[in-house]
Amino acid sequence: MVVVAILAAGRGTRMKSSLPKVLHCLGGRSLIERVLKSVEPLSPSRRIAIVGYQSEEVKAALGSIPDLEFVEQTVQLGTGHAIQQLLPYLEDYTGDLLVLNGDLPLIRSETLQEMLQTHAQNHNAATILTSHLPDPTGYGRVFCNDENIVEEMVEHKDCTPAQRENHRINAGVYCFRWENLAKVLPHLEANNAQKEYYLTDAVTQVGQVMAVDVKDYQEILGINDRLQLATAYEILQQRIKEKWMLAGVTLINPTSITIDETVELEPDVIIEPQTHLRGNTIIKTGSQIGPGSLIENSQLAENVVVQYSVVTNSIVEAGSRIGPYAHLRSQVQVGAGCRVGNFVELKNTQLGDRTNAAHLSYLGDSVIGERVNIGAGTITANYDGVKKHQTKIGDRAKTGANSVLVAPVTVGDDVYIAAGSTITEDVPDDALAIARSRQVVKLGWRRKSQ
Amino acid sequence: MVVVAILAAGRGTRMKSSLPKVLHCLGGRSLIERVLKSVEPLSPSRRIAIVGYQSEEVKAALGSIPDLEFVEQTVQLGTGHAIQQLLPYLEDYTGDLLVLNGDLPLIRSETLQEMLQTHAQNHNAATILTSHLPDPTGYGRVFCNDENIVEEMVEHKDCTPAQRENHRINAGVYCFRWENLAKVLPHLEANNAQKEYYLTDAVTQVGQVMAVDVKDYQEILGINDRLQLATAYEILQQRIKEKWMLAGVTLINPTSITIDETVELEPDVIIEPQTHLRGNTIIKTGSQIGPGSLIENSQLAENVVVQYSVVTNSIVEAGSRIGPYAHLRSQVQVGAGCRVGNFVELKNTQLGDRTNAAHLSYLGDSVIGERVNIGAGTITANYDGVKKHQTKIGDRAKTGANSVLVAPVTVGDDVYIAAGSTITEDVPDDALAIARSRQVVKLGWRRKSQ
Amino acid sequence: MVVVAILAAGRGTRMKSSLPKVLHCLGGRSLIERVLKSVEPLSPSRRIAIVGYQSEEVKAALGSIPDLEFVEQTVQLGTGHAIQQLLPYLEDYTGDLLVLNGDLPLIRSETLQEMLQTHAQNHNAATILTSHLPDPTGYGRVFCNDENIVEEMVEHKDCTPAQRENHRINAGVYCFRWENLAKVLPHLEANNAQKEYYLTDAVTQVGQVMAVDVKDYQEILGINDRLQLATAYEILQQRIKEKWMLAGVTLINPTSITIDETVELEPDVIIEPQTHLRGNTIIKTGSQIGPGSLIENSQLAENVVVQYSVVTNSIVEAGSRIGPYAHLRSQVQVGAGCRVGNFVELKNTQLGDRTNAAHLSYLGDSVIGERVNIGAGTITANYDGVKKHQTKIGDRAKTGANSVLVAPVTVGDDVYIAAGSTITEDVPDDALAIARSRQVVKLGWRRKSQ
Repeated sequence: MVVVAILAAGRGTRMKSSLPKVLHCLGGRSLIERVLKSVEPLSPSRRIAIVGYQSEEVKAALGSIPDLEFVEQTVQLGTGHAIQQLLPYLEDYTGDLLVLNGDLPLIRSETLQEMLQTHAQNHNAATILTSHLPDPTGYGRVFCNDENIVEEMVEHKDCTPAQRENHRINAGVYCFRWENLAKVLPHLEANNAQKEYYLTDAVTQVGQVMAVDVKDYQEILGINDRLQLATAYEILQQRIKEKWMLAGVTLINPTSITIDETVELEPDVIIEPQTHLRGNTIIKTGSQIGPGSLIENSQLAENVVVQYSVVTNSIVEAGSRIGPYAHLRSQVQVGAGCRVGNFVELKNTQLGDRTNAAHLSYLGDSVIGERVNIGAGTITANYDGVKKHQTKIGDRAKTGANSVLVAPVTVGDDVYIAAGSTITEDVPDDALAIARSRQVVKLGWRRKSQ
Repeated sequence: MVVVAILAAGRGTRMKSSLPKVLHCLGGRSLIERVLKSVEPLSPSRRIAIVGYQSEEVKAALGSIPDLEFVEQTVQLGTGHAIQQLLPYLEDYTGDLLVLNGDLPLIRSETLQEMLQTHAQNHNAATILTSHLPDPTGYGRVFCNDENIVEEMVEHKDCTPAQRENHRINAGVYCFRWENLAKVLPHLEANNAQKEYYLTDAVTQVGQVMAVDVKDYQEILGINDRLQLATAYEILQQRIKEKWMLAGVTLINPTSITIDETVELEPDVIIEPQTHLRGNTIIKTGSQIGPGSLIENSQLAENVVVQYSVVTNSIVEAGSRIGPYAHLRSQVQVGAGCRVGNFVELKNTQLGDRTNAAHLSYLGDSVIGERVNIGAGTITANYDGVKKHQTKIGDRAKTGANSVLVAPVTVGDDVYIAAGSTITEDVPDDALAIARSRQVVKLGWRRKSQ
Repeated sequence: MVVVAILAAGRGTRMKSSLPKVLHCLGGRSLIERVLKSVEPLSPSRRIAIVGYQSEEVKAALGSIPDLEFVEQTVQLGTGHAIQQLLPYLEDYTGDLLVLNGDLPLIRSETLQEMLQTHAQNHNAATILTSHLPDPTGYGRVFCNDENIVEEMVEHKDCTPAQRENHRINAGVYCFRWENLAKVLPHLEANNAQKEYYLTDAVTQVGQVMAVDVKDYQEILGINDRLQLATAYEILQQRIKEKWMLAGVTLINPTSITIDETVELEPDVIIEPQTHLRGNTIIKTGSQIGPGSLIENSQLAENVVVQYSVVTNSIVEAGSRIGPYAHLRSQVQVGAGCRVGNFVELKNTQLGDRTNAAHLSYLGDSVIGERVNIGAGTITANYDGVKKHQTKIGDRAKTGANSVLVAPVTVGDDVYIAAGSTITEDVPDDALAIARSRQVVKLGWRRKSQ
C-alpha cells in the first residue's frame, strides 16, 4: 500500500510567471497533472498534493481530479517541512509514502514501479531514485556500497574533488516506510544557511536506505525555468514521435511536428511538416495530414487528406479532402468522399457523402445532404443578431456563386440556387430559386465617366 | 559492362506498412527509384529488380521505367537465394554484376563508379563496399590486408572482442565478375539458424575480393523502419540545402525548409522558414518565398514574392506578389507585376501583366487581360453543375466587390462591373454593367423589431 | 577616444550574390549594420566604413546612419592596404583605432569594451582579440606569454605540428594606438603569394601587443557563404530565444520560432510553433501567438490570441482573438474583446471594442464602431478604380452576409444591413437598409433543364 505525496507548494520564481510553477502546461497537461498521471499505475491508496503558493489556484486547477487531497503548507520551509504537514493526515498509516516533486513531468510509471518493488523486496526503510548524469554539477551525490545501500549523501558544494567524480545524483524521488519516517520527521533541524528543513536529512535517519538507478536520466529533469520547460517538451515529443514512427507512421521533418500523447494514429498515416495533432485526435490508416495543419480533438477516417487547415472537435469520413486553408471550427461532420476547399469554414455543420464546398464559403448550423455542390462564396446567414438558426439543404442541390441562405431556411433535394441570390424562404424539391436583378449595360460608360 | 540487380523482394516488416518497403517514399521518390537513379550514370546494360513480396504492386509502381526487368523470387530464402534466381536470365553473360539493396536510397553514383573502377583495374573477382562506422554493432566486419584484399568477413555475433574493435563493416553492395559468381551460386548452403542462403558466403569463394571504403557512411544507411526513413530524409535534405546555400541561396531557419532534389534555384533567392519546394519547380533570382509556403511543379520568375501560399503547376512572371493565403491551384499563369492577395484562388486561369486580384476571389477557367482590377469577393461561376465554362475579361476592366461572372461570359476592355452584380451576359468594351436592386431604407427599424 | 574602422570593401565571392557581402541581411539587419550596432556603446568619436566593391550600393544602404563616414579603397590589396587608406583622414589623430570586419555580425559590445579597457589599462600599442577554437584549422595562431603579451603570430599553413596544437587564434579584431600604427603602415610590404598588404604584419611592428580572449567563440564567426549566414542566424536566434525564455516567455518548439532582437515580450506570453515576430513588435502578458503566425511592427495588448495569421503595422487591444487565417495588413486598430476570424482582411481600419468580423470579409479604409457584427462575406468597396474612399459604421450595427458597402458611405448606429445588399448611400441611425431582389422559385426546374 502506498500513499503518494506531491510537493506543489513552491512558487517557481525562475519561471517568472503569475502562475504557480506546477500549473505550467507541457504538451496539453500541467506539470502536476503529469506527475499524477505517472503514479496512476501504482494505484495509490491516497494522493496528497502539498500546496502553498497560490494554493487556491492550484486546487481550482486540479478540482476535477477525483479523490485528490490537498494539504496546506502555509509557509515554505523546505521539503522536510512540507512532509511534516502530512503527520496529522497519516496518523495511523502503516504503509509506504512515495514523495515526488510536482515539477517532475517526465518520470515514467515503470521507473516508479521498479522503485517500489525494490523497496518492498528489500524491506528498505527508504528507497531513493538516483541517476548517473553526464554533468552532475549542483546535484547532491549519493554514495552506495555494492548492494546499492546508501552510505552517504553529500551536497555538491560539500563534495571533495574525489567525491565530485561520482556522477550518481539524488533525483529527489523518495519512497519511505511511513512509520519510520513519521518518527524522524518531528526532530528535523534547520541547520543550514537557508534555515530550511530538508527531507534528505530524514533519509539518513530512517534505517536501511537503498538507491535505485533510473537508466534514462531525462526522466528526472525538473522544471525550474522556461528553458527547462522547452527541453522537457522536446524530450516528451521525441518519445511520442519515436513511438509512432516505430508503429508505422511516416513523419516528414519530425522536429517540426508536435503530437500530444493523447493522439491515436494508425500505420501508414503520413504526417507532413509543421503539423500539430492535439487532444483526443484519432487518425486512421492512409490519411495524409499537413503541411501546416492543426488537428484537435477530431477523428479522421481512412485516406483523408488535410493540407494547411485547422480542424477542431470534428469528424471527417473516409477519403475526404480538406484544404488548403479550410477551417472546421467545431461540431462538424464531413461525410465520405467530400471536398472542403480553400477559404471554407464549417461550424456545427454536417456534410453528406460526396458533397463539395470548395471555395470561399461559410456554412454554420447547417445540415447538408449528399452530392451537394456548394458554390464559391455561398454563405449561410445563421445569425440574426440575437440567435443562431439552422439551414437545411437537400441531396444533389447546387448553390450558385455568392448565394446567401438566410436561416432558418430549408432547401429541398435537387434544388438549384442561382448565382448571386439571397434565399430567405424555403425552396421545395426540384426547384430553381433565383433572387437577383436583371443585368443592365450602359455603353460608352468609361468615356463619359472621365 | 555491368548488369545491375536490385534486391526488392522483402516485405520490410518493421515498416509496419501495407506497402512493400522499397515503395516507401523519400522526398518525392520511392526508395527503389532512388537506387535506380543512383545506377543511371553507370549506364548498366540491364537492370533487374528481384521482386517477391507484393511483386505486382512493385511492378506496377515501376512500370513506367523503360527496360527495367523483373525477376520473381517467390519465396524469400536470403540474399544468395535471390541472386540464384538470376542464373537463367544471365546464362551467357560475361560481364560484371552489381548487387544493391532496394532500401539503400542515399548511395551516391560517384561511390558506385569508384567501386566499379577499382573492380576493373584490379581484375577482382568481387569488390565489396565497406565503411567505418562510429557504432558498428550488428554489422558484419570486414578484415583486409594492406592492399584492401578481403581476408575474412565475420558476422558481428561471431566476432571476438578484438575483432569487434574493427569498425570496418560490409555495406551489402557487391560487384561480382558474373562468371565466377555463377559457378559458386548453385553450391551455396543454408547452414545457419535462419536457414537462408547468404550472398556473403559466395563472396569468399569467387576469387580475389577487394574492399572499397565509402567515406561518408551516411550513404549506406539502409531503411528498415520509419525512424530510419526520417533519418534518411534529414540527410538527403541536408545535402540538398547545403548545395543551394553554397550556390548563393539564402535559407532562413533551414531545418524547417524542405527542397526536393528536382528543384532548381538561382542565386539570391531567399527562402523563408517553413517553406517546401517540390517537384519540377524553378525559382529565379531575387525571389523571396515564404514563410509557410508550398511550391510544387511551378516556375517563378525574377523577384517574385510568395508568402503563406500554395502554388501548384503554375507560372508566375517577374515581380508579381502572391499571398498571404493565396492558392494557385493548377494551370495558372500570372503575368508580370501582378498582385494576387489574400483568400484568392486561381485555377486554370491567366492574368495579364499588372492585373490585381487582391482579396477573397475565385477565378477559374478564366482569361483575364492586363491592368485589370478584380474587386474583392469577385467569383467566376465556372461550373453549371455539369461542366466548366470560360470567363474572359478584357484589359483595364474593373469588377466590383462581390460580383459574380456566370460563365460562359465575355467582358470587354475598359468595362466596369458594378459592385454586387451578377453578370450573366456578355458586356461590350467600354461599358458599365450593373445588375442589382435599388437601396431601400426603413427608418426606426430597430425599435420596431424589438 | 576611439575611432572605429569597418572593413567593407570586399565582394564576398562565396556568397554568390549580386549584393556586396556586408549588405546581406541577418535577422532584419545587414551584417555591417550589426557591426555598427555592436560599437555603439563604445561611443566612438568617428566611424569609418572602408568601402570598395559596389561602394555606391553600400553607401546608399547605409545613407541614413548619421555621421557614418566612407573611405574608398578602389582596389582591394588586403587589410593593411585598406587601413592605409585612412592615413589622410586621421592625420593629427592621437587616440585609438578599432578595426573590425564588416562581416562579423555576432560580436558583443561587452567583448569590445573589455578589449578597449585592457588596451588602455596596459598602455598597449595594439590589442587583438583571440579565441580558443575547437577546430582552428585555417586560422592564424597567436602565441602569448603568461601575461597575454603576444610573442608570435603564425599562419596556419606555416605552423609546425606542435604549433598547430595551439588552438588560440586571431579573430581579426584589432585595437591600435593610431600614432604607432600610422608610422608602420606606409612601410608594409606585400611579400606573399597573394601580393596583399596584411594588417597582421603591422601588428608585430607597433610595440607591445596584448591578446584578449573572447570566451564565446561564436561571437567571432565571420560570414563568407550562406551556410555561415544560416549558422550565424541560428546562433543569434538562440541568444534571443534563451533571453526571452529566462524572462518568463514560453516558447513551444523553439527551433521553429524566430524572433527579431527588436521585439519586446512580457512574461507569460506563449509563443506556439512556427511563429515569427519581427521588427518593432510588442506583445503583452497572457497573449498566445501561433502556431503559424507572422507579427511584424505590431503591438498586441494583454491576453490577445493570434492563430495562423499575419499581422503587420497594427495594434490589437486586450483580449481580442485573431485568426485562424486573418490578415491585418497595415494601419489596423482592433479594439478590446474583438474577434477577427477566418479569411478576414483588415487594412487601414479601426474596430471598436467588442466588434466581430468573423468570416470572409474585407474591411479597408474603415472606421467601425463598438459591438458591431460584420456578417460573413461583408466587403467594403473602398476603391473606385482611381482612389480609395472611407466607410464608417456606427455602434451596434449589423451587416448581413455578402453585403457590400460602396465607399464613401456612412452607416449609422444600430443599423441593420440586410444580407446580400449593396449599400451605395448613407444609412441613418436605427434603420434597416436593404438592396436586393425578391426571391422567385421555378418549380420542377430540374426535370425541365434535363
